[in-house]
Amino acid sequence: MLHPAPAKTLTHQLADRFAERIRDRLLAPGTRLPSVRQCAAQQGVSPSTVVAAYDQLLAHGLVEARRNRGFFVRDLAQNAAPALAASARTATDLIATGDIAEARRQSAPISAATLMRGMFSGDRDGKPQPGMGVLPPDWLDNDFMASALRRASAGAGLRDATVRYGDPQGDAELRRVLSARLARQGIEAAPSQIVTTVGATQALDIVSRTLLKPGDTVMVEEPGWSVEFARLAALGMRMLPVPRGPQGPDLDVMARHCEARAGTRDAPRLFVSVSVLHNPTGYCLGPASAHRLLQLAQQHDFHIVEDDTYHHLAPEHATRLAQLDGLARTVYVSGFAKILAPAWRVGFLAAPPALVEPLLDTKLLATLTTPTLLERALAQVIDQGQLRRHAERVRTRLDTARARSVKLALQHGCTFAAEPAGLFGWVDTGVDTDQLALRLLDDGYLLAPGALFHATRQPSTLMRINFACTQDVAFWRAFARSRDELAAPIRA
Amino acid sequence: MLHPAPAKTLTHQLADRFAERIRDRLLAPGTRLPSVRQCAAQQGVSPSTVVAAYDQLLAHGLVEARRNRGFFVRDLAQNAAPALAASARTATDLIATGDIAEARRQSAPISAATLMRGMFSGDRDGKPQPGMGVLPPDWLDNDFMASALRRASAGAGLRDATVRYGDPQGDAELRRVLSARLARQGIEAAPSQIVTTVGATQALDIVSRTLLKPGDTVMVEEPGWSVEFARLAALGMRMLPVPRGPQGPDLDVMARHCEARAGTRDAPRLFVSVSVLHNPTGYCLGPASAHRLLQLAQQHDFHIVEDDTYHHLAPEHATRLAQLDGLARTVYVSGFAKILAPAWRVGFLAAPPALVEPLLDTKLLATLTTPTLLERALAQVIDQGQLRRHAERVRTRLDTARARSVKLALQHGCTFAAEPAGLFGWVDTGVDTDQLALRLLDDGYLLAPGALFHATRQPSTLMRINFACTQDVAFWRAFARSRDELAAPIRA
Repeated sequence: MLHPAPAKTLTHQLADRFAERIRDRLLAPGTRLPSVRQCAAQQGVSPSTVVAAYDQLLAHGLVEARRNRGFFVRDLAQNAAPALAASARTATDLIATGDIAEARRQSAPISAATLMRGMFSGDRDGKPQPGMGVLPPDWLDNDFMASALRRASAGAGLRDATVRYGDPQGDAELRRVLSARLARQGIEAAPSQIVTTVGATQALDIVSRTLLKPGDTVMVEEPGWSVEFARLAALGMRMLPVPRGPQGPDLDVMARHCEARAGTRDAPRLFVSVSVLHNPTGYCLGPASAHRLLQLAQQHDFHIVEDDTYHHLAPEHATRLAQLDGLARTVYVSGFAKILAPAWRVGFLAAPPALVEPLLDTKLLATLTTPTLLERALAQVIDQGQLRRHAERVRTRLDTARARSVKLALQHGCTFAAEPAGLFGWVDTGVDTDQLALRLLDDGYLLAPGALFHATRQPSTLMRINFACTQDVAFWRAFARSRDELAAPIRA
Repeated sequence: MLHPAPAKTLTHQLADRFAERIRDRLLAPGTRLPSVRQCAAQQGVSPSTVVAAYDQLLAHGLVEARRNRGFFVRDLAQNAAPALAASARTATDLIATGDIAEARRQSAPISAATLMRGMFSGDRDGKPQPGMGVLPPDWLDNDFMASALRRASAGAGLRDATVRYGDPQGDAELRRVLSARLARQGIEAAPSQIVTTVGATQALDIVSRTLLKPGDTVMVEEPGWSVEFARLAALGMRMLPVPRGPQGPDLDVMARHCEARAGTRDAPRLFVSVSVLHNPTGYCLGPASAHRLLQLAQQHDFHIVEDDTYHHLAPEHATRLAQLDGLARTVYVSGFAKILAPAWRVGFLAAPPALVEPLLDTKLLATLTTPTLLERALAQVIDQGQLRRHAERVRTRLDTARARSVKLALQHGCTFAAEPAGLFGWVDTGVDTDQLALRLLDDGYLLAPGALFHATRQPSTLMRINFACTQDVAFWRAFARSRDELAAPIRA
């Protein structure tokens, strides 16, 4: 709702609000603005104010009008830059060659990924944000990181972790500690098989850049994590979605994908999987699925990258592919952003021996080495069991939060599309969550609409909620109000 | 020289020594081993010992015999991994399509880059290494980094730089400080035009990934930095070498490259330049060349990435492209690895406003954010003038070292292919420096042979020396001995 302000007209206020969201990528390119009538009702202004505001946006090149269909957000990156992002150009090229369906499929996740940037713009009015992909900062608080950093810097420590590049493979002590941790998970990985990275993000990037070349086919889980889709699209890969179920990927679909392309250059070369506490569903891979999946990988000669980002929030003894596979054709990836130190950007991969060298080459070309000091401090908190105890406390707290959020979601008319587990709930709202997200921005809430989780962006009534951030009834009331408005559209 | 040892035969010792160097990539794939006769003389063993050792290497798949030509190092990455590095596969594909010349050109820099890894394997017997690309660790010592890190961690500082991802564009304070520094260089870049990166390396990687797509043509300086060649090759780019002279790139060659491809898909899209203290020659761009180069870029619509890695070692008031260009089509890149903290991996880029968003998208997909804590500590030492004063001290010390190294090089029969300046000397030895490098490994010295600095790997009598690491007469004596042996080959 807008309020008259002395300095600015209502038209200006409304135009500014939309302009800011378009620039912040909270309104993704291609998003339709609400109709004039809807917007007027929603903001409590006259339709003529809305028309004037939309005209301003049009004049500033932020939106475009499509005959009889309304106003749509333009792609600013494409218009402003003479040289476009590689991904965007890939899509453009595809359109040029007439492959519109492919182009639409590939360009979609880009807007999804850029939309994610809204999530980095800090607290929105200090409210817990239901769409967040991480735990709230205060959940990560601890008293051991400061002393670990002091110890790592003490004596000659700081100098040693500053004045030379450090081991390209990563700090030897951290790799030793990680090797021991993996052994406890039943994954045999020598320190020489481990490469540290700038967060799990860089590990995933390095794997794709090393094992694939542009135009290669990759199987991805759907629903799945849009940033992974965007990364693969930007690298020029073709994605084949495989539906993700409670036990794992749909192996019949996967087998058909492989069989249909066997012996061609489109044969899938990689499968990217969040096996445990899958994002967004929270599903954990079953042992039988894991076994059959590895057989398929063997039969059709593709690699698997197992993204275990949610490791520290996961139930004990969950099955990992890398465990069954003995790191034969699986590259295992994990990090610490979800439990301890997102801004430290420490992650790692554990790879089959023959892949270590090529993966390391890619790391060298991408970032040379990684910051030694932070790796050493982290090695200490793992080695001394502080991280393990911290993770236990966080899991207990998350269990409580999940119970509360689930109850509130159900009370406000939602259903769960997947059994609640881990950090995220996969919630069916009954209305288009792209539209819902747009409305809830006005209330200061950032949602993660279901469309974000599809390689082929498509309308969805689902959304992902962060259980730690949806314990507040105020959010669910705002949610229910907007949902009800959407379900019963304004009459003429 | 080998010495009889109780535990191992001479054959085993010799085979092990070669095997280790091949595995460490100190002997690049494709390198020819010395002839049996040469090796026997060099190592003080009988020819039959060498034959037996080479047979062992052959049996272990480390080398291959080519009829009448001798033994050559095999490409281990290609043989061991079922999935190859993207770059290697690109070369393979090119061979498959019959473009052997292109394949040879593209595959060459890879071995050059992997060879660089030898440089990370720590001090070799504690000797200063003439081939190193950085100052010796003790040159970077200072008393201000520890207190800057303490201040950045004090109070809520550490928590704030740990528990949230941080600004994707990089720490705001560091960007403010960098903007002020650039202004003093005459480069107008608002903090909003700056993106921090994991060293200058990631900045260069991000620029290529954002502005180019696989198959695009990039102009590079020759001689130039092999890791940049390797990165571009791995991304699937085509490189057009432009000779680098004392005043800048050869603009006539550049103009011909552009004109010959104008309007085609092979039109160069980017020029990568180390404008000031060029690696390996030490040349600094002249103002008139800079002006004409920017005109060419305008006329043929390509971007320039200006790699100012050696900024802190450069003369005051050196001309930068970004200064003349006002960041219109130049992306400026720099970092702190050469002066202060290689292992902190802090670098940055400053870009035309329209390119900031696409570049930031690539950073997000590659590493999400960068470590806030290290960026904040670095901002302090820049802001308080500590880095500037430290750099002045280092430059003075380097001037002394350079004078000494130049004298020794001349005394030992070398000539300088470029006027000595900055960190590196570009030295003509009169013999093949690939062969020379191989021999000096036995004396515990790692050279940077001239072939490393060519996009099209070719024999060279040049080598790059690090002025800080060549002040010791012991190196030059070993150098002269090997050089003389090579110049006067063993007679039958």
